[in-house]
Formats: sequence, C-alpha cells, structure tokens
Amino acid sequence: MNQSTARGRPGARPIRQDDIRRHNLGRLLGQVHRHGELTRADLTQRLNLSRSTIGALVADLTELGLLDETVPVGGERVGRPSHVVGPRPDGPYAIAVDIDVTHVSTAAVGIGGFVLAIHDVPTGLRSSSPVTIAALIVSACDELAAKVPDGAWPIGIGVSVPGTVTSSDGTVELAPNLGWRDEPFGQLLAGLAPPNLPISVGNDADLAVMAEHMRGAGRGCNDLIYLAGRIGVGAGVIANGAPLRGFMGHAGEVGHNVVDASGPRCHCGRRGCVETYIGDKALLKLAGRRVSPTIAHMTEVFAAAELGDVRAAAAVRTVAVALGQTIGSLVNILNPEKVILGGSLAGVFGFARPELEAALVAHTMMTDREAVELCAPGLGNDSTLLGAAELAFARLFADPLDQSSQS
Amino acid sequence: MNQSTARGRPGARPIRQDDIRRHNLGRLLGQVHRHGELTRADLTQRLNLSRSTIGALVADLTELGLLDETVPVGGERVGRPSHVVGPRPDGPYAIAVDIDVTHVSTAAVGIGGFVLAIHDVPTGLRSSSPVTIAALIVSACDELAAKVPDGAWPIGIGVSVPGTVTSSDGTVELAPNLGWRDEPFGQLLAGLAPPNLPISVGNDADLAVMAEHMRGAGRGCNDLIYLAGRIGVGAGVIANGAPLRGFMGHAGEVGHNVVDASGPRCHCGRRGCVETYIGDKALLKLAGRRVSPTIAHMTEVFAAAELGDVRAAAAVRTVAVALGQTIGSLVNILNPEKVILGGSLAGVFGFARPELEAALVAHTMMTDREAVELCAPGLGNDSTLLGAAELAFARLFADPLDQSSQS
Repeated sequence: MNQSTARGRPGARPIRQDDIRRHNLGRLLGQVHRHGELTRADLTQRLNLSRSTIGALVADLTELGLLDETVPVGGERVGRPSHVVGPRPDGPYAIAVDIDVTHVSTAAVGIGGFVLAIHDVPTGLRSSSPVTIAALIVSACDELAAKVPDGAWPIGIGVSVPGTVTSSDGTVELAPNLGWRDEPFGQLLAGLAPPNLPISVGNDADLAVMAEHMRGAGRGCNDLIYLAGRIGVGAGVIANGAPLRGFMGHAGEVGHNVVDASGPRCHCGRRGCVETYIGDKALLKLAGRRVSPTIAHMTEVFAAAELGDVRAAAAVRTVAVALGQTIGSLVNILNPEKVILGGSLAGVFGFARPELEAALVAHTMMTDREAVELCAPGLGNDSTLLGAAELAFARLFADPLDQSSQS
Repeated sequence: MNQSTARGRPGARPIRQDDIRRHNLGRLLGQVHRHGELTRADLTQRLNLSRSTIGALVADLTELGLLDETVPVGGERVGRPSHVVGPRPDGPYAIAVDIDVTHVSTAAVGIGGFVLAIHDVPTGLRSSSPVTIAALIVSACDELAAKVPDGAWPIGIGVSVPGTVTSSDGTVELAPNLGWRDEPFGQLLAGLAPPNLPISVGNDADLAVMAEHMRGAGRGCNDLIYLAGRIGVGAGVIANGAPLRGFMGHAGEVGHNVVDASGPRCHCGRRGCVETYIGDKALLKLAGRRVSPTIAHMTEVFAAAELGDVRAAAAVRTVAVALGQTIGSLVNILNPEKVILGGSLAGVFGFARPELEAALVAHTMMTDREAVELCAPGLGNDSTLLGAAELAFARLFADPLDQSSQS
C-alpha cells in the first residue's frame, strides 16, 4: 500500500504528488506566455534550473501539446544551436470575453497572448440582460471553435465586466451601465457553458491594467493607472508592482466621483459625476450627435474633429479639460509613473493632448505633474480582452498537468 | 590572516560578520517594540528559534541596555515562571518631531512606543522658516534629554512634515502651508543636530497611518486610510498591508483635489480645493471665528458646538458634509476597510457623525458604502509623532549592535 492509498486517495495518480514538477511546468509555461519564444538556454537562466531539468520540463510540455520546440536553421552563431521553445497555434486557448454596453467581444487567445480568432457582437442598450449575454457568449464559443486552428482546445472562459465583481464566485455586484446589480453571472454562465470550461469574472479596468502591465505600455512600470473610458469610466491600478484591489476588490471606481455637485444629472442619481463629463455620452452630446455611443460612432467623432469639424473638435477639447482634472485627482492620490488612457479616452488624448496636459498640470500637486506620463494603450483596443484571457490562463499556469487532462 | 583582514577590513570586529545574529537581535527587539512585554516562551514561538538562541539574544540585548528582563513574582501558574522581556525606561529613545503650521511637537519615544517626554512649541504662521524650525528642534532635543529617565539615550531623529518629501535625503519638496519648496531640511537639521543622531524625514499622514496600523485603530487592517486634517489635508494609505507610496513617494496628496472649480479661492492658486472645504481655516471661517487655526482654537470650536453654539454647530455640520464627499471619492478609488479621521477631522467626526456618514453614503459606490468603517485615531493626537519615532527606530531594528555602539 503506497502513501496515496494510505491517505484515502486510492484513485490519485502518483504523478499528482509531484508538486515541484507541476510548479516548474507552470513557471516554464508562464515564461513563454510572458516573453514569447525562448531558447532552452534562456529558460535555464530564467528559471534557475539545470539544463537537464529544463529538458525534461520542455519534453513534458510538448508532449502535452502545450508548447512547441523547434531547432532554428541557418543561424549565424557557431556551435550547436539552442532549441527554441514557443507557443503553438493548435495549443490551448483562453476564451476571453469583454462585455460592454454596446458590444460583447469574444476572442480565442493562445499562449503568448496571441489572438487566434475574434468575434464581435453589437448589443443594443436594452438587450444586456445577464441571460441574453450569457447565451451570446456560449454561442460565441462555438464561433471561435470553428475559427481556431485544427486541434486547438479551450481551457476556460475569462469575462470582463464594466462593474464591481466578487472574484471568488463571479457575482457582478454593480454594473450601473448594464443595469446589473448582484447578478450571479459566473454561476449563470457556468450553467450554460460546456462543463469542462472553468469561468472567471473580473472588472474591465483591472483586467486591462494587468494586460498592459504584462505586455503593453505599462511593461516594467510599477506604479500605473489604466483609465478606461467608454460609456462608463473606471480605473485599474498597479501600485508598487501589484494590483491595487482594496478591501472588497473594488478599488478604482472613479466614474462616480463627483466633480461638481451642481453639475449634470448622472444616471446613478447624483449630479456632476466624472462620467457625465468624460463618458462617451457626454462627448456625443457636446458634439451634437444624437447617436448611440458605439465604438464606431465614437471613432467618427474623433475622425470628424481631425478633419476640421468645429463642433466635434470643441467637444473633444472640452472633454480633454475635464479628463485632465480627473487624472489630476488620481495622480494626487496615487502618484503613478504612467497613466494609460483606454477606450474613447485614447481618442481624446490623441486629438487634444495639449488641452489635456494643461488641465492635468493645473490640477496636480506641483512636484508630481512633471513626472507623470500619459500614453495610449500598448495593446490598442485589446487590453481588456487580453486581461480577460489572463483570468482563464491563471489556472493553467498554476497546474499545467491538471488542465491539460481536460483536452 | 583571517578572512576579514584578507578582504582589506583589518579593523572590522569579528562580531560584525554575524549577520544572522544581528538580524535576529533586530527581530526580537522589533517584537517587543510592537507587542510590549513578552515572555521568553512567546519569543521562542514568534521568532521560531530555539529556547537557547532566544536566551542568548535576550542576554545580548539586556547587556546592551536595550531591553530589560524580569522574573514575575506571585503568578498563579504552577512551575517555573517564564522570564518577561520588555522595554526599559532608561533605554534608547527616538526623538520624534511633528512639524505643523502652528506648532512643533517633539517627543522622546522609547521602545514599545512609550512617550517618555514631550515638548510642544507653538510657532507663529510667519515663523516657520526651515532654519528657525531646525534650531527649535535642536533645542528641544536638550529639553527632552533633561526630562527622560537617567541613563536613557537618543538614537536618532524622525521628523514629520506636512508636505511631500524625498525620503532618501530628507528634502521637503513641497509643504504649501509652511511655504517650503525644495528645502533640503534633512541636511539642514543634520548640520545643527549632534553628529551621532541620524535624521529621517517623512510625510505626516504617511507616518500617522504607519503608527495607527502598527498599534492604533488600524491594527490588523490591511486596507486603511488615515485622513489628516489640520490647516492642510493629506492622506496616508495602507493598501494590501503595505504603505502606498506611489512612483515618487507622494501618494495621498488629496488636499488640493478640486471639489468644485467655482469654489473658494485656495492659497495654492486653484479654486475649490478639498482644503478650502474641510481645512481648519474653512471651519473657523464658517464658525465666524477670527482666530489662528491652533489646536486649542479648533478644540474650542468643537466644545462650543457641543455646548449648543448654533453657529459653531452649523459650521461643523457643513464641514462634515464636505468631508463625506472627500472620503467618498477616496473610498471609490481605494476601497479601504477603514478610514481613520485625524487632527481636527476627529472633532468633526465626533460631533457630526450622522451628517458625515450620510454624505459618505451619497458619494460612494453602492457596494462599498456599507462596508467602510469610520473611526477616530487609536493613538489620539500622537499618531504622527509615534510614526515619526518609527522612522528613527528603523535603523535600530535593522541592526541593534550598530546603533547601541553610539550610546
């Protein structure tokens, strides 16, 4: 009788006890995920393991179909070329979901953050009930499965929501612009999705800043804000290299901070919230456009401003000034090195940078305003989707053996 | 030839190479500092060291005069009583300095956070030049030396400043209410103070939250804000158990966040800053009192409000509403478990808690407002002083042998 049966786990495979191996498999996979193709020599150095151990781990991961190993030909270096370990297109993929008010984007994201397939569905402002959205996601999973390379397999679903989330069970506590409150969305989606796909739910800005920190404009930056602006406005924060979550995981909810108590009425019931100054609806209204705040319509406003549309240009500049004040308040409190402007705010930054920066200077403590750097997302519109993919990947990196058994 | 001379350090005492011992001496001292008197049995458990090692470390620290060991008499427990290790009143003390606009408080703080002596000097609003303040601190060091128990000795000076500080060299970058800008205050004070007293400088709210987290109302709380309000307003933040500093160490500068761009003129040049609504001068003005904002005058306003002075009561309630909005914005961004209200804000909280809490609810995202707890400082008016003492103690705990040699 061996130890595992003695402990009452007769069905446990002996390999499951090899915690160190699992841990190192996850570390190796995580290195390739973060840095892309790496040589065995790179891996030996980064993981501080012996060449033979690296060789064994790589053999395991290629055997499991999680990574590929190739021998480069025609290199210029003398001697035996080091094998290159990298992601494979027909490997595991995360199903990343970005739920916003006017659309649901779904993507198949492979190891290394490669988007293998993408599927966008516009949603009306009145069709965002949790059940409708969950059904839409499940059907998008099939669409993606048809588009990814043959042999690739999904390992889980990571969902981004524009609201506050209890990460342990995926309950959406409050997503004002979706009209959701205390929705057990994780549970709902789990009931509809295939049973072998674990589901995780997170806040949009928290996920975006994670992705930008990992492989975007925030790489190597330890004090970072991603300010996400679409219909709603929220911030994801990295402080001292780690996500700033707060006591209940709700840090960064800047959208309903009151800028002016006698300002415009907000849908939340208050007056003068940040969203009423820098949200998409505010910009459309200032630009005199009676259209829904879709990404396409917002892009049109910025294009019109660039082309000399006086009203559009003035609208963007007005939003830029309010945005400068909003960022100024965040900078005073959090003293970041960098602020990444995502969603429509990237458009405001692109067109009205001087007005934005002047307002920021006017609203920031003297010693910090020279230091903070504003920038557009390094991952374009995909920061949130790639962050959602990380939610799904987290389980795989925690234990590659456990996950791959589901393929 | 032994190793240390081989490495060209002929004068180095062999004991200096005993890094583990130094480290453990610092840990033991730190435990007594944080928790007060502990038995040898407690220490054995907390430090995860053997009884004999603990015995040797305790012997070293008592030998150095840093701690006392006593054998309790008359206990009720059977068997040999465990020796109790604790601070000694004639041991080392930190010189803690709290510079504010209307006063400079200086205290001798012993291990365990015991205030051995205190010395307050009121300063005029126009007499706060760096040189004047530095000279005042040096003379206060003598006053304290005369008041502490015979044999006690100072180990360093920790200074709190109401402004942003470069901690590496003690330069005060901006302390608007003192009128200081880029003042090399640490260097200035070092030139005047006795040469064996290392000097450290920190931000008032950062130091206060550190002390409250260690031994005040924030003990055991990992997401904590200390909102300091006197003439200026600033926040010290603990996020996920660690100080939130930001890129340049300036996080928490909430005092000049703009509440209303058409609000009252602020001395910083802007309009409607937080300070113009909840700073001491705002409260005195609302209460119709043309006096300087000293602690005594502020205490009088709160006392008058309690005694039924209608104008004072209305003034405190008005400030409470603005304070609720300020806290609401901080809660939305940082999602703390607790907010400690320090300085005059403790008085506002004490008198107008219902108005304050109602305003907080109105300005906080729904899911968080039920969770956040408001409270007064556990250390009364001494949070900042005790935090400043920690700055000075940090060196002692890093290496008790190095410091004690200066006695």
